[in-house]
Amino acid sequence: MKAIQIVEGSLVWEEIKLPEPKKDEVLIKISATAINRADLAQRAGNYPPPEGETDILGLECSGIIVKVGENVSENRIGEEVCALLAGGGYAEYVCCPSIQAIKTPTNLSLIESASLPEVFATCWLNLFLEGNLSQGQNILLHAGASGIGTAAIQLCSSFGANSFVTVGSEEKLRFCLELGSKQGVVRGEGAFEEINSWVKSGFDLILDPVGGDYFSNNQKILGLEGKLVIIGLMGGITSEINLGHLMMRRQKIIGSTIRARHKELKGQVMKDLESKVWPLIEKNEIKPVIFKTMNISEIEDAHKLMLNNQNIGKIVIEIA
Amino acid sequence: MKAIQIVEGSLVWEEIKLPEPKKDEVLIKISATAINRADLAQRAGNYPPPEGETDILGLECSGIIVKVGENVSENRIGEEVCALLAGGGYAEYVCCPSIQAIKTPTNLSLIESASLPEVFATCWLNLFLEGNLSQGQNILLHAGASGIGTAAIQLCSSFGANSFVTVGSEEKLRFCLELGSKQGVVRGEGAFEEINSWVKSGFDLILDPVGGDYFSNNQKILGLEGKLVIIGLMGGITSEINLGHLMMRRQKIIGSTIRARHKELKGQVMKDLESKVWPLIEKNEIKPVIFKTMNISEIEDAHKLMLNNQNIGKIVIEIA
Repeated sequence: MKAIQIVEGSLVWEEIKLPEPKKDEVLIKISATAINRADLAQRAGNYPPPEGETDILGLECSGIIVKVGENVSENRIGEEVCALLAGGGYAEYVCCPSIQAIKTPTNLSLIESASLPEVFATCWLNLFLEGNLSQGQNILLHAGASGIGTAAIQLCSSFGANSFVTVGSEEKLRFCLELGSKQGVVRGEGAFEEINSWVKSGFDLILDPVGGDYFSNNQKILGLEGKLVIIGLMGGITSEINLGHLMMRRQKIIGSTIRARHKELKGQVMKDLESKVWPLIEKNEIKPVIFKTMNISEIEDAHKLMLNNQNIGKIVIEIA
Repeated sequence: MKAIQIVEGSLVWEEIKLPEPKKDEVLIKISATAINRADLAQRAGNYPPPEGETDILGLECSGIIVKVGENVSENRIGEEVCALLAGGGYAEYVCCPSIQAIKTPTNLSLIESASLPEVFATCWLNLFLEGNLSQGQNILLHAGASGIGTAAIQLCSSFGANSFVTVGSEEKLRFCLELGSKQGVVRGEGAFEEINSWVKSGFDLILDPVGGDYFSNNQKILGLEGKLVIIGLMGGITSEINLGHLMMRRQKIIGSTIRARHKELKGQVMKDLESKVWPLIEKNEIKPVIFKTMNISEIEDAHKLMLNNQNIGKIVIEIA
């Protein structure tokens, strides 16, 4: 099969060995994958794959199951699925645990479905399992126009919570407000002062891919028993923490990644998505936000788009 | 009734008005109270009582219910109880929500039972409800010879977890090891290096009343999906946080106090203690560690003992 290899820093489509599914795995013939910021970090050498996982980029895909391991029912062969991967999506075929590959929503194409696993699994894990999101809560989403942001805005609306966003441009802000955010602000000087005026009692949950210099401000606007979930470190890895705020407001600071989690947890998250979120997609209440669909031959351009923060929502990559 | 009042910085036993139980409350004739570090902080003006609560010191007591509010069964009158209080323990009588006053263990005197509510409720909340302590986990307890520390060591043993301690003296260290801790160290230079050598994969849970300069070291020795629960700030309120560690190890940093929580949560914690911990006390598997029992007339000396970190376990104060 062919797969993207990193050769002297460049992404090259090369022939490599077809993987063989282990006993709890399926082999998927990939229709499409999608780009994540983590791919850029891995390519730059800053986010190595978990031990024992492929070093091929790509944390999600859609496609058709063509082979199964000995513990997986052969009935799955031929199934159209989308899958959460620990790596390997930039390829013609990939193996993953059977529980991480779920049916695609009936109203989406196989190509469109490649946009779903990573953002919806990340949002489900962090908003619901880590964040205990509940009705009427106020949720702040940094990078609101990202894949994760646009999925989170819609999940908040569907589950009765109020979402607020920070974004990188006026265009992105308009998009997020149309998608369902209550209020938003373009990041930069004075942004946190404005955010602070929206919810007097402080936020119940902040989903933050920035870290670094956002941390202190996040802590200031986090309310009583509020949860700050750090899912990325675009802004750096150190900050000052105010333990007085932490204790008196009984705040929780949570570091979260999904890639290195046990497959059982990933399987549970995917099962939740299939039963609780796909029905909302099928009712058109939640729509995946796809910025652009490109071909694997354009992968370098696709990476540049994300590196320059030009996308609103997901960049999908057709493989076949 | 008489109660301790703070008059020009001194603790004075003065006549004040007897409180009246609200509809969900009981009035307790107090037999004994016990001292907590929070009392010293409140006395110094650094830990004001939650809104609407008495400003009399004292976060726990034992005694006899002598009157009940309209929603509380009159059958409770005459019951020997110990109670978790938001304040008011340094007095002859106190009102508190009925659900916060529970039966005392059958094998303890009413005076001894005054030592139980605050430390066992704090430990139960933070080890089990916040910390999800489970069998085989490795738990680090700073201030292991404190009331909370000595209760936590025994709870860890009873529930199959391994406890490790830092303490202020060799005498305290010996005490903690005899009480059930696996290993311990006297705080000071090199202590964290030694702690780091005990559990290679890092701790599952750290219970920390220090904050401040302990924070960075705590984060370093906290393992994968480890929880750092901050329950006090004896070492200061600011520190640097490493968000890289936080995210890659999926750590949770939790600020926790019990005093300002909803009475429903406090009631749940007390109910758990009555059903899950008091039976262990009645089997002599867990013993309250009482350093000294003094009279309310000696309250200034009692505060000095705690201020100078001379106590191992609780200082109980007889009222009647």
